Formats: sequence, C-alpha cells, structure tokens
Amino acid sequence: MSSHEMSNLSKAALHSLPGVCTDRDPETLSYTFQQTMLRIRDPKASLEFYTKALGMTLLERLDFKDMAFSLYFLAYVDPSKIPEDRKDRVQWMFAQPGCLELTHNWGTETDLDFKGYHTGNSEPKGFGHIGIAVKDVDSACKRWESMGIEFVKKPQDGKMKGIAFIKDPDGYWIEVLNPSNARAFLDWPGNM
Amino acid sequence: MSSHEMSNLSKAALHSLPGVCTDRDPETLSYTFQQTMLRIRDPKASLEFYTKALGMTLLERLDFKDMAFSLYFLAYVDPSKIPEDRKDRVQWMFAQPGCLELTHNWGTETDLDFKGYHTGNSEPKGFGHIGIAVKDVDSACKRWESMGIEFVKKPQDGKMKGIAFIKDPDGYWIEVLNPSNARAFLDWPGNM
Repeated sequence: MSSHEMSNLSKAALHSLPGVCTDRDPETLSYTFQQTMLRIRDPKASLEFYTKALGMTLLERLDFKDMAFSLYFLAYVDPSKIPEDRKDRVQWMFAQPGCLELTHNWGTETDLDFKGYHTGNSEPKGFGHIGIAVKDVDSACKRWESMGIEFVKKPQDGKMKGIAFIKDPDGYWIEVLNPSNARAFLDWPGNM
Repeated sequence: MSSHEMSNLSKAALHSLPGVCTDRDPETLSYTFQQTMLRIRDPKASLEFYTKALGMTLLERLDFKDMAFSLYFLAYVDPSKIPEDRKDRVQWMFAQPGCLELTHNWGTETDLDFKGYHTGNSEPKGFGHIGIAVKDVDSACKRWESMGIEFVKKPQDGKMKGIAFIKDPDGYWIEVLNPSNARAFLDWPGNM
C-alpha cells in the first residue's frame, strides 16, 4: 500500500477495534469531559495568555490556604453567563465542559530556583498538548506573532500543513487547527 | 482570617486579577477548546478503559505510517451523530469540543523495554489530570471498583470529600466530581 493511500476506516470498522465498547453502560450517560489540569508557574502570565491571546474567560479561582495553592478555571463561555453568587458560580463552573484548570503553587512566580514545569514533550514524555479549533489558522498566527507568542511550528512548516503549535508561558504546547481544513489532513504524506 | 473562611471573590474581583483580559478580541470568538492529547502505550487497553469504564465514544483513528503512530479521538457524543464518510467524519470530529486525543507510537504495547509514559504527577511535574463530571460519584466508583480500576483517591479519602481520582491504563489521573456537590468544596478545610 502506498504511504499516501488512506486506510478509509469505516465507522463499523472503527467500532470493532480491539477494546472498543459500543454497548454503553447507562451509568455513564451523565458523564462529561469537564477539565484538563496543568500546573503553572505564574498566574499573571498564564491568565494574560489564556484570556488575551486565546480569548478564554476566567470562571473561578479557588484558594487552598493550608496547602498554599490556587486553582484557576478558564473556558470558552459567555462571561454574562457566570453567576455572581460564589456558591452558585462554583456549582455552575464544575458543570461546564471543556474547562482548563491551572494550578498555581504559591511562590513559584518569584522563586529564582524554581526550575519550571515539565511540558511532557521531552523525556520523560507523557502529556502532549491541548488544542483549539479556530476559523482561520493563518490569521490567528499573525495575531500571536504580533503579540510575541512563541511557536513550536508555524502553519506552513513541516508535513502537517495548515496546523500550528504555540507555547503557553510554561512551555506547554497548544495545537491550533481549522476543522474545515481537516479533510486535507488525510492527504498528508504518510497518512493512510 | 480563619483557614475555613472563604475569600468570596466577586465576579468583578475575579475579572480584575492581574493579567486577566475581559476585552475579548473578536478574532478569538470562533475559538473552541477542541482536544487534550496524551500518549498511550497500548490502544486496546486505553480504548477499553475510555469507552467502557468512562463511556466515551471513539470518533476517529488517524494512522501515520511514515512516522509509525496512530491517533485515537474520543469524546462524549451520540455515536449516531458520527458521519460515515471518512472525510466528513474527520472534519466533523475536529469541530467537536472536548475530545481526548490518544497518541500511540507503534510497538510500545509489545516492547518489554518500554518504560511507560510519565503522568506528570511525580517529578518532573507538569500536567496534572483530566476530569469528568458525573451525577453520582459513589455509584461511579462502585462500578469502577467492580471493574478493577485503580484509584488514586476514593471519595471519602483525605480532605477533599466527595471527589475521587482514578488511573487510566498508563497511570494518568482522572478526577471525578459531581457539580451538584461542588458548593461544599468551598467549605473544605483550608479553602478560603
């Protein structure tokens, strides 16, 4: 088979792959993918990146004094939807799917000996990236270039044309893609 | 201030924190949080865990023969919504918010020398966990116990009553919470 030929996996074949369960337990029907948590060094830098460069909204901060850390929750939601009452807000926030949770252990932002967090993309590897879908990858990247955002990969670099990777202030990778261009991903060299 | 007293951060105070931008650039209005990517050792084990234990649906697999890896995309979506046509499916999939992307570098599942992936929760730390919201944490945990799923923390353990952490087959942590119980999180000892 040519390395350019795609496998054209049918939906039935996909759901027959080893391990895949299609007989969903009703117990799981309420489940939602609510959060992804990353540790951050400096909340000011991360909040600026995620609210300004990425356009997310800060939904809540929870402070744990005894353990000296704070949690920041961000998501793509209409800020007018955020409840004013604190307890209402916390309950509402944990019901929002697709939250980014940032954990700040107090003091790292001014600790000159702090070595920074591990992005998962050098050894030992694990976590890879978060990813956002946008309408126009090139336009998004031009804006980030003007803001001095660091790139791992620009849209025109490498084999994976049309997608970009940027870095957040801790170096975590963020993939940037346009779903409307995704049909072409199947024609990338080596995809099958 | 008592360590039990919460700071009762108002919405206005939240959005006045250093770094927070509330004047959202219209350029970012199309953005969605589309994916979180984790590397996995064995697709069969991970697919079983995420589709059976967590009830997610497998949306797509993309194979990159030249680079010897495959990507698996899962999410909480109605399987009947998945397009049959491959290109339609790929475009649709990348427009779904809240996808979990699992990267499988071919061969790790049978490589006896493979040391496994790094969860981010031991040194060097970084990524922390993904999290799901469920209607009944205790009921979910009983089901996982019967399936032999490994726990980091059961709901009744520690200070953070009512939330659990389980491990996926690579050891990545998954937080499990019920938004309806989240009001009580503010009363945890040390929260303020």
